[in-house]
Amino acid sequence: MTQLTPAVRNVLSWYDGERPGVKASLARLLMHGRMGGSGKLVILPVDQGFEHGPARSFAGNPAAYDPRYHFALAIKAGLSALAAPLGLLAAGADHYAGEIPLILKANNANSLGTVKDEAVTASIRDALELGCSAIGYTIYPGSDRQYDMFEEVRAGAAEARANGLAVVVWAYPRGGQLDGKAETALDVVAYGAHIAALLGAHIIKVKVPTSLIAEPEAKASYSDGAGYGHLSSRIEHVMQAAFNGRRLVIFSGGPARDDAAMLAEVRGVHRGGGHGSIIGRNAFQRPHEEALKLLDRVIAIHLGEDA
Amino acid sequence: MTQLTPAVRNVLSWYDGERPGVKASLARLLMHGRMGGSGKLVILPVDQGFEHGPARSFAGNPAAYDPRYHFALAIKAGLSALAAPLGLLAAGADHYAGEIPLILKANNANSLGTVKDEAVTASIRDALELGCSAIGYTIYPGSDRQYDMFEEVRAGAAEARANGLAVVVWAYPRGGQLDGKAETALDVVAYGAHIAALLGAHIIKVKVPTSLIAEPEAKASYSDGAGYGHLSSRIEHVMQAAFNGRRLVIFSGGPARDDAAMLAEVRGVHRGGGHGSIIGRNAFQRPHEEALKLLDRVIAIHLGEDA
Amino acid sequence: MTQLTPAVRNVLSWYDGERPGVKASLARLLMHGRMGGSGKLVILPVDQGFEHGPARSFAGNPAAYDPRYHFALAIKAGLSALAAPLGLLAAGADHYAGEIPLILKANNANSLGTVKDEAVTASIRDALELGCSAIGYTIYPGSDRQYDMFEEVRAGAAEARANGLAVVVWAYPRGGQLDGKAETALDVVAYGAHIAALLGAHIIKVKVPTSLIAEPEAKASYSDGAGYGHLSSRIEHVMQAAFNGRRLVIFSGGPARDDAAMLAEVRGVHRGGGHGSIIGRNAFQRPHEEALKLLDRVIAIHLGEDA
Amino acid sequence: MTQLTPAVRNVLSWYDGERPGVKASLARLLMHGRMGGSGKLVILPVDQGFEHGPARSFAGNPAAYDPRYHFALAIKAGLSALAAPLGLLAAGADHYAGEIPLILKANNANSLGTVKDEAVTASIRDALELGCSAIGYTIYPGSDRQYDMFEEVRAGAAEARANGLAVVVWAYPRGGQLDGKAETALDVVAYGAHIAALLGAHIIKVKVPTSLIAEPEAKASYSDGAGYGHLSSRIEHVMQAAFNGRRLVIFSGGPARDDAAMLAEVRGVHRGGGHGSIIGRNAFQRPHEEALKLLDRVIAIHLGEDA
Amino acid sequence: MTQLTPAVRNVLSWYDGERPGVKASLARLLMHGRMGGSGKLVILPVDQGFEHGPARSFAGNPAAYDPRYHFALAIKAGLSALAAPLGLLAAGADHYAGEIPLILKANNANSLGTVKDEAVTASIRDALELGCSAIGYTIYPGSDRQYDMFEEVRAGAAEARANGLAVVVWAYPRGGQLDGKAETALDVVAYGAHIAALLGAHIIKVKVPTSLIAEPEAKASYSDGAGYGHLSSRIEHVMQAAFNGRRLVIFSGGPARDDAAMLAEVRGVHRGGGHGSIIGRNAFQRPHEEALKLLDRVIAIHLGEDA
Repeated sequence: MTQLTPAVRNVLSWYDGERPGVKASLARLLMHGRMGGSGKLVILPVDQGFEHGPARSFAGNPAAYDPRYHFALAIKAGLSALAAPLGLLAAGADHYAGEIPLILKANNANSLGTVKDEAVTASIRDALELGCSAIGYTIYPGSDRQYDMFEEVRAGAAEARANGLAVVVWAYPRGGQLDGKAETALDVVAYGAHIAALLGAHIIKVKVPTSLIAEPEAKASYSDGAGYGHLSSRIEHVMQAAFNGRRLVIFSGGPARDDAAMLAEVRGVHRGGGHGSIIGRNAFQRPHEEALKLLDRVIAIHLGEDA
Repeated sequence: MTQLTPAVRNVLSWYDGERPGVKASLARLLMHGRMGGSGKLVILPVDQGFEHGPARSFAGNPAAYDPRYHFALAIKAGLSALAAPLGLLAAGADHYAGEIPLILKANNANSLGTVKDEAVTASIRDALELGCSAIGYTIYPGSDRQYDMFEEVRAGAAEARANGLAVVVWAYPRGGQLDGKAETALDVVAYGAHIAALLGAHIIKVKVPTSLIAEPEAKASYSDGAGYGHLSSRIEHVMQAAFNGRRLVIFSGGPARDDAAMLAEVRGVHRGGGHGSIIGRNAFQRPHEEALKLLDRVIAIHLGEDA
Repeated sequence: MTQLTPAVRNVLSWYDGERPGVKASLARLLMHGRMGGSGKLVILPVDQGFEHGPARSFAGNPAAYDPRYHFALAIKAGLSALAAPLGLLAAGADHYAGEIPLILKANNANSLGTVKDEAVTASIRDALELGCSAIGYTIYPGSDRQYDMFEEVRAGAAEARANGLAVVVWAYPRGGQLDGKAETALDVVAYGAHIAALLGAHIIKVKVPTSLIAEPEAKASYSDGAGYGHLSSRIEHVMQAAFNGRRLVIFSGGPARDDAAMLAEVRGVHRGGGHGSIIGRNAFQRPHEEALKLLDRVIAIHLGEDA
Repeated sequence: MTQLTPAVRNVLSWYDGERPGVKASLARLLMHGRMGGSGKLVILPVDQGFEHGPARSFAGNPAAYDPRYHFALAIKAGLSALAAPLGLLAAGADHYAGEIPLILKANNANSLGTVKDEAVTASIRDALELGCSAIGYTIYPGSDRQYDMFEEVRAGAAEARANGLAVVVWAYPRGGQLDGKAETALDVVAYGAHIAALLGAHIIKVKVPTSLIAEPEAKASYSDGAGYGHLSSRIEHVMQAAFNGRRLVIFSGGPARDDAAMLAEVRGVHRGGGHGSIIGRNAFQRPHEEALKLLDRVIAIHLGEDA
Repeated sequence: MTQLTPAVRNVLSWYDGERPGVKASLARLLMHGRMGGSGKLVILPVDQGFEHGPARSFAGNPAAYDPRYHFALAIKAGLSALAAPLGLLAAGADHYAGEIPLILKANNANSLGTVKDEAVTASIRDALELGCSAIGYTIYPGSDRQYDMFEEVRAGAAEARANGLAVVVWAYPRGGQLDGKAETALDVVAYGAHIAALLGAHIIKVKVPTSLIAEPEAKASYSDGAGYGHLSSRIEHVMQAAFNGRRLVIFSGGPARDDAAMLAEVRGVHRGGGHGSIIGRNAFQRPHEEALKLLDRVIAIHLGEDA
């Protein structure tokens, strides 16, 4: 944590009126690792074990069954932060204390149940005890439980802010009127980002949107010739939805797949003004060295060093 | 906060027995802006991003994606207050501290789900921290969740009043026995306003009613030849339902449309004794200068300066 | 509050073991107005605006749209108390402080929805702030939500009693196995009164029963030749169901109709040993002077001054 | 609780902004007994057993050892209220429920200790359970513990007001710079009354002041030739100190002594605009019939029926 | 609440990081009355009745015994705010709701005792219920109880800020090593102001300092030839002590005395960069018209309109 750069100062200015402790937490995230000072973030999330089960998450690279693997990877790669559920963070927070900003993913779901909801699995106190810089919650706008989830986020966010923690919201629309394709439709992703901002999120995590417009009532609003066929235009629109770019928005890579496709997507996020990437399975499901190489390229893209 | 006018003193007299702090908050709303001192209110609500999504709300005037746009618009137009969800208010409350009374819209719904309910997205403490003068809740009389919503409003209103905040209730009947047309039927709108008053609302927001009478049992009560074909007569009836005019009732403009039609409606509200208008999409979905012009005309009508 | 009469002392003796504050509240109700000291009660309830909508409730006598009308009517007529929801009481409790005992009707339903339930719309703290002598709840024995309602009443009643407030229960069987006629069947009304007593009600409000016996299993129990064809015999039976007459039971007049029929019913209640009447629509839906005349006759009947 | 008189309405108007329930409690005190409706109060306080011990308090009239004696005396004499500690009220509140307004004296001291302080011996919940209309606290302005006492009163008064109870403060300066004579000096008594009013007391109880001015710095303020040699002038000054007569102030008779002297003092209180008397030992330390006669004369003086 | 002036925006910029609600409250104080927009404050404090007794405070102008007098005076004179204890504010907050910003003086002492301490006589909840913009506490740096007082201020200030209220601290060094003259010594007054700022005060109230340097150890620090013989230089030094002028500091007029001397002092405060005056006894102890004239001159000086 050396002197803040103009880019980081600019990001912090978007949060005027927020408590100094929250700004200090945001600054810690923004000044760490290779992205430090750029105003962008590249984060390693490891909640897939909870979401999809351990084998689906880690069998491809068995070293990743060990929680400490993820701390080491994030540190080695020079990432901005590691985000994970309570147990995983608790398994490495002591050994790696002070080496990498932590985001406690405080609600979680699994693939065994049928209800589109999440359990609150950690508290603000847990986050403070582990030395986290932020707390994270997932919301499912559209689901039958969405309003309960919003209320959980609201309560958690208020307590987090009162304790100087930043709040990250994973906005994943699903359920209700939305089918599988609609979940990543441009209008729906933008809507999810906007709701997260209205709920008070400091950092918003969304999926990379497709060019589909899912809500019939919304179609007219997208007939402006802005060229939503280009990913960068779609990213630009999501940034608009996030208070005209005045909230940090990072984009997930989705399921593991072809590197070229994935990096092309990262380039689109960068060109569209997205604030970074959150790369999980694409990182930890491959051998360590390959993961470092891939993350190096993602970081280079977001730093504008990619020619 | 200059000396109260007789018109404002008269409004405050309706709330005898209420805490002095609540009266001071009402006075703050009633003494601000161009409507200041008239006993009437013109309010800018910006919860459409939550309710209908960002593009449907702001694509027509992209500057409105930025929360600060709405603060600036409300201030420039000389409105009585800005009403919005937590995240939007938090994004401008510091920069515009002390420049415009704020109403924290504390529950919200979106158009992605299928359940007729709202999430409580903000607390009284949030409202106090942001320097708000009032807190606002939507109720859906008729919906399957209506009684839960009433209980949320009751709890929030009690805490608000104990902390010197005024309570605004958006009364939007829907669900249950009501189809789309019934939602704006005269008897149903009046019923919604009455329920809001009985729940303890200080300010009630309803939609402009049509001349339809939706409840069969209510038809006889409207066969008094009062001429409900005239909008002003319908407004008069809604005011009756609001404790015979002893509660502040403001009317929404509904979806953006033809200015002449909208202004004619505002004139009807004024002639019928309504206490003002709440103009959202009709204001922020058009260019800034045009919005100022339209709001200027709405204000003029409510001030009786419209010839 | 002058010296208690033997009739009132007798009523209070039924509640031995109850907290002194609750007895003092009951005494306040029983010593007030023209019924004061008789051990009987005539109460004005004004929750019809919530239950049936404002126009159906007040269009026949528009002055009644103003909450203060009902305070003034109850005071002028010398009634025992005014019972109404939070917003209505709050609109007059200050101006009329100390002039008429108040009963806060703390749960309410409306006719727009389809769920047979009520919302809890007020708290014990609300009742104390407004200076009420009692709190009132409706239960719908038989409805799908009945047990939730019983539990709300239980919680409210316990807190009310701990704070010296009396508890009034409106026992309105409906839903479940009951069709419209069954709701006022003798066995069902008596059953509702008994449940209210068992839930700890100090004052029970029921509808005047018909001679129908609705539950097949109950028919044998009513073949005792007690002459349930006479209203007074039916009232006597309801009083039996209310701890053999050791709970205050008052009877509602139902929808507005022919005065002669209504007064005949009141006479039946009186002859059967009922403790009084609760007269809403029959009172406030007619012009003020006529309402006073009718209430005068009801009072006279319950005082035994009716020849 | 019959219709409020103009005198009582006038008293209530001094408490604008106070909760309706508190006004209703004040109205109950002001409308009860022979003083009812006059805007004045005559109260029986029985805390001397705690303050001075039972024999010093009751040996002169052994019937007064029984708590119920005091309830019966206050009722029979037509007094405004009975004020006593928890145990004494609890010993009669059930039997006399609803017959006399009660004031729970919630802090107490005894003559065995040496510290000028009082114990908080009852709660607001106790007062509500017993059906009290008010709660009372003693303060000793000047004592080393005065600030602790003020804080206790503040906490109790806030909770009382939130629950619709009136607050009575016994203002007895003592300790600190004050010797015995100073405790009843005009400037000191007025100072005590003023502090009680600033702490939020609705009813203030002070001792009848002498013409001494105890604080050297205050002497100049009393050199206005107002004739403080006359008791009525001194009472007038105390009323000034109580928000220019806009707080109810009642005066104690002090230790038992010659009736003529005592009644002369009551006349002075009446002439000076005092709002009544609080008569303890002079009432219950003499035989029942004599007590009734004396109280009858005190009441007559305050009603202006004394020729 | 009209548009903030550059002067007020500048003041608010000193409090960056503070909650928006606190800034809104500061803005309310800074935008009200004749000083509105100037960045300066002239406040009427009325706690002398508690501190010195009613006669010493109000006998010179008996109309001032009535709490409403002070509301009316502050409003008529166009002052920034009225500061007073709970009971006084409660006696006018309803009638004057919304007409003048209020500061609840939440701890108080009197002149009867010998202990240099204050009682906490009001809560944050009280301030919110009364519609106050700020809460105020006195500290006695140097006294034996100073640390208890600091802790009370800290707790109150934290709760006030969390609820959007500004915090005013009256810094009055006394006791300990300080004799009467030392209480207003330049080094001691500056020290008190600095402690208040360090405790988190938004507005600091001190006495006008003399040129005495009381602490021997401090003497060397004042040998800089800054000319502390001039009041304006001394004021400049106090402003330095208040975070180099980045905290609002207002100066009290002290006991009533010669107008010319008092106004000369106000001029010195103005020239030295003080943020305004708090004028109590000099205002309310003289006839109404004379008070208005004096306050008009004080205001003119602080507005720089005094030639």
